[in-house]
Amino acid sequence: MQIDILTLFPEMFPGPLGESIIGRAAARELARIQAIDLRRFAHDARGTVDDKPYGGGPGMLMKVEPIVEAVESVRRPESVVILTSPRGERFNQRLAAELAKKRHLVIIAGHYEGVDQRAIELAVDREISLGDFVLTSGNLAAMVMADAIIRLLPGVLGHDESSVDESHSAGLLEYPQYTRPPEFRGLKVPEVLLSGDHGRVDAWRRRQSERLTRERRPDLWEMYLQTTETELK
Amino acid sequence: MQIDILTLFPEMFPGPLGESIIGRAAARELARIQAIDLRRFAHDARGTVDDKPYGGGPGMLMKVEPIVEAVESVRRPESVVILTSPRGERFNQRLAAELAKKRHLVIIAGHYEGVDQRAIELAVDREISLGDFVLTSGNLAAMVMADAIIRLLPGVLGHDESSVDESHSAGLLEYPQYTRPPEFRGLKVPEVLLSGDHGRVDAWRRRQSERLTRERRPDLWEMYLQTTETELK
Repeated sequence: MQIDILTLFPEMFPGPLGESIIGRAAARELARIQAIDLRRFAHDARGTVDDKPYGGGPGMLMKVEPIVEAVESVRRPESVVILTSPRGERFNQRLAAELAKKRHLVIIAGHYEGVDQRAIELAVDREISLGDFVLTSGNLAAMVMADAIIRLLPGVLGHDESSVDESHSAGLLEYPQYTRPPEFRGLKVPEVLLSGDHGRVDAWRRRQSERLTRERRPDLWEMYLQTTETELK
Repeated sequence: MQIDILTLFPEMFPGPLGESIIGRAAARELARIQAIDLRRFAHDARGTVDDKPYGGGPGMLMKVEPIVEAVESVRRPESVVILTSPRGERFNQRLAAELAKKRHLVIIAGHYEGVDQRAIELAVDREISLGDFVLTSGNLAAMVMADAIIRLLPGVLGHDESSVDESHSAGLLEYPQYTRPPEFRGLKVPEVLLSGDHGRVDAWRRRQSERLTRERRPDLWEMYLQTTETELK
């Protein structure tokens, strides 16, 4: 997979995306990430990529020409062009899995003041939002999406790591976990986890996951119950 | 405000948080962000901070001692200690505004395999989740939270920028925006925005915001209708 990120801050990217699992994926050529400077597509020598909104109002907008021309410079028939936008559909694990099947993603890191609407009409396939909060720019949102997508690519996670996904995609929150030492400041690891009885361990974890999901995320719990009922039919 | 981020990857942080508005806030000493290496609090020479889960299962957990001791090294009476966690309450603009009022935040960037539950019991005030997706680590989540919070601090945004918030916090999605040129590849700026008639512009934008919210985010639209009704009473 290739991910091209169109951004006003290309220098933000090497750090976060060079580390850890994503860095390993790049090193093994499972994913290629490129940050492309939108200013290269400005129409004047000063590199102007923003302008005031028609009709008045605060802030500056990203201009239509640089975005459309930057997208055209990288677009291939199989490309999916994404704009990070508070107006977009919500990013979640289902969407990450869907996008992980594509061969080429172009992510435009929007600026929170907005983007000329014609750039969206001419160049964008999907508007995607990280959540109901405002960021200084879409750059961090683009990184988060790239991270969640790349770790799903075949071969990126080791066998040991990838099975963690399955517990998440089962639709329940994760059970409490413990590691050494068996006691720390008076707090002990639950006895069942030291028992070596895999049946009891599994049952305990299941109950904990169900309890946490019910208490903290009634919305997920409802969805889980519906899915389970459907499977039983 | 001070934000201390406890992380296994402190070298990820300078880039993204040094740019743009957040960098300006740091330069003007409105916010101080520090990435603290959790490995400094390991109990062995190799810097071990993770271990296998009791009861078996995939992946490694973050150990309890380094987290608790790292938090204790920075905690003050006014501190709020946050763990990035898929099990946590959902991050949103309301929560960002609440946290922007605190004087000291400590954000523990969790690893997705998890954290010894006792570290949460002993050292964490709030577990917060960015959304229903899995990241390679909590580092990007910590950056996103820091970014959304810092931009709300008094003086960080210029007057021109900050008013953008108000349209968002009104609970509607933003209307379409346009900037120069008036025509691009056959697509024209809506005539009303060129009219200079502020009343008509405002009414058009309002209608567009309402339409987009109704179509794309029925959940926000419902909340908006309820709030408006309450205000009218």
